[in-house]
Amino acid sequence: MYLGWLCGAPADDAALSAVASLELLQAFALLQDDVMDESASRRGRPAAHVQFADWHRRNGLSGSAQRFGESAAVLLGDLCLIWAEQMLRDSGLEHDCLRRAWPRYDAMRTELAVGQFADIATDLGDLPTMESVLTVARTKSGNYTVRRPLEIGAAMAGCDERTLARLGEYGCAVGEAFQLRDDILGVFGSPALTGKPSGGDLIERKATSVVVAAHQLADTATRRQLRELMTSEQLDDTAIDRWRTLILTTGAVQWVEDRISERVEAARKALDDNVDDSVAAALIEMAGVCTRRAA
Amino acid sequence: MYLGWLCGAPADDAALSAVASLELLQAFALLQDDVMDESASRRGRPAAHVQFADWHRRNGLSGSAQRFGESAAVLLGDLCLIWAEQMLRDSGLEHDCLRRAWPRYDAMRTELAVGQFADIATDLGDLPTMESVLTVARTKSGNYTVRRPLEIGAAMAGCDERTLARLGEYGCAVGEAFQLRDDILGVFGSPALTGKPSGGDLIERKATSVVVAAHQLADTATRRQLRELMTSEQLDDTAIDRWRTLILTTGAVQWVEDRISERVEAARKALDDNVDDSVAAALIEMAGVCTRRAA
Repeated sequence: MYLGWLCGAPADDAALSAVASLELLQAFALLQDDVMDESASRRGRPAAHVQFADWHRRNGLSGSAQRFGESAAVLLGDLCLIWAEQMLRDSGLEHDCLRRAWPRYDAMRTELAVGQFADIATDLGDLPTMESVLTVARTKSGNYTVRRPLEIGAAMAGCDERTLARLGEYGCAVGEAFQLRDDILGVFGSPALTGKPSGGDLIERKATSVVVAAHQLADTATRRQLRELMTSEQLDDTAIDRWRTLILTTGAVQWVEDRISERVEAARKALDDNVDDSVAAALIEMAGVCTRRAA
Repeated sequence: MYLGWLCGAPADDAALSAVASLELLQAFALLQDDVMDESASRRGRPAAHVQFADWHRRNGLSGSAQRFGESAAVLLGDLCLIWAEQMLRDSGLEHDCLRRAWPRYDAMRTELAVGQFADIATDLGDLPTMESVLTVARTKSGNYTVRRPLEIGAAMAGCDERTLARLGEYGCAVGEAFQLRDDILGVFGSPALTGKPSGGDLIERKATSVVVAAHQLADTATRRQLRELMTSEQLDDTAIDRWRTLILTTGAVQWVEDRISERVEAARKALDDNVDDSVAAALIEMAGVCTRRAA
């Protein structure tokens, strides 16, 4: 969002405060997503709803500790959603800057909630098509993670429609590549890197791009084994390891890696000469940070 | 909120659209409260989370229908919270009107979430004091239901501090009386009137003003019976009826009725000569509608 701002205006403390409000919006999304996905950990520590439930138990309150923990985390999420918007409004930016930001900000928040609904309504019994997986990646994570913040920052700064369109193109490509990298990490990333259990997406039976690509590229025998793992009731570490190996043999990871490179290349091309050289350099660096293979 | 507006400005379509946005904020609160309280019905029909869960079952999706229903209702609540604010901002009111509204609007939304947290964190094992019950009534329902909307409307219309203070006093009194009436209906109201099961607050073991007053006014023998009912695992219709009769014998309902009359009287007195006669008449009528004994 701040890089978007810098595409049309000089460095500014009020703008920095406005963009920092996105951390609160992100906190809203994580707090409630973790409840809905029943994720026990976040950033390598117990998720908020788990900590609230522990507090309930430690204080010997009556009623269900789990229910209390989930309700408290949802309420804290609501507060973060409210405070995010309050922080943006009170950032000190001119009324005209904010007036240009609001429609895009509201669209982003609506997309975020609708994207999360699409996520919980996806039925794993029916493996989705790659097309629909990529659409969800683009709307839920892609738009929210890169494209919309960038556009909001640029709109606040008064960038023209042409610049906004090119930034939108860049953001869409980087956002999709970011999600695809996240999908690879969700299967092969270490807990130290992701702050989640190893193979988390497999444990949660998420139909991510990697999982769907493996299914599509697999020969008949491998596909049957993948299907068995996906529908098995219990998965121990050995089963997860076997699942990982099967995915690798299909070439799915290479397929997703190729698509990431292609999207990063498209993002580079979208940055046009309207954008100041130093900002363009920072955007290209950010594309790398968002999508790079982990060390 | 519209009556607050009329205290300082003439009837206006943009203002009407601004105040209608409160319906969306209310929808947010009801959708999420019903999940947290595990309330199965709302306005005489199945609650939203119950309907979402039914949809999940009817479509034979995999995973927990209850979890899906609750998540979908929380997300719909989030959308209503976002849309409420968007509707207010896009109402067509002048920037200066809205600028005066926002701090109060944000405070109201924060109080609403914090009040709901206080609600779920109240431990029924420890019966709260009447003082703390009335404080929750004032902050959660009172402020949110009457006082804040009235103040926001008046602030939007540019009322001076003195008028705002008197309206705040009126709103605080009517809001508290409204909650006390709601507490009586929660024990004695018919399902046709409340859209909730008969004796709903007893079934949910809520420590409302009526329940706490009964406990305080009861003699030792009655208090022991009240305590038994409150802590019993199962309550059938006979038990609920017995509980109602016990409450009546303590004089708790009359005590709460007296307090309602006293608060409505205080509200009348707070309306000062600054407020236009026809608006004052409408506010007095509203105080009656909010707090009147059901026919």
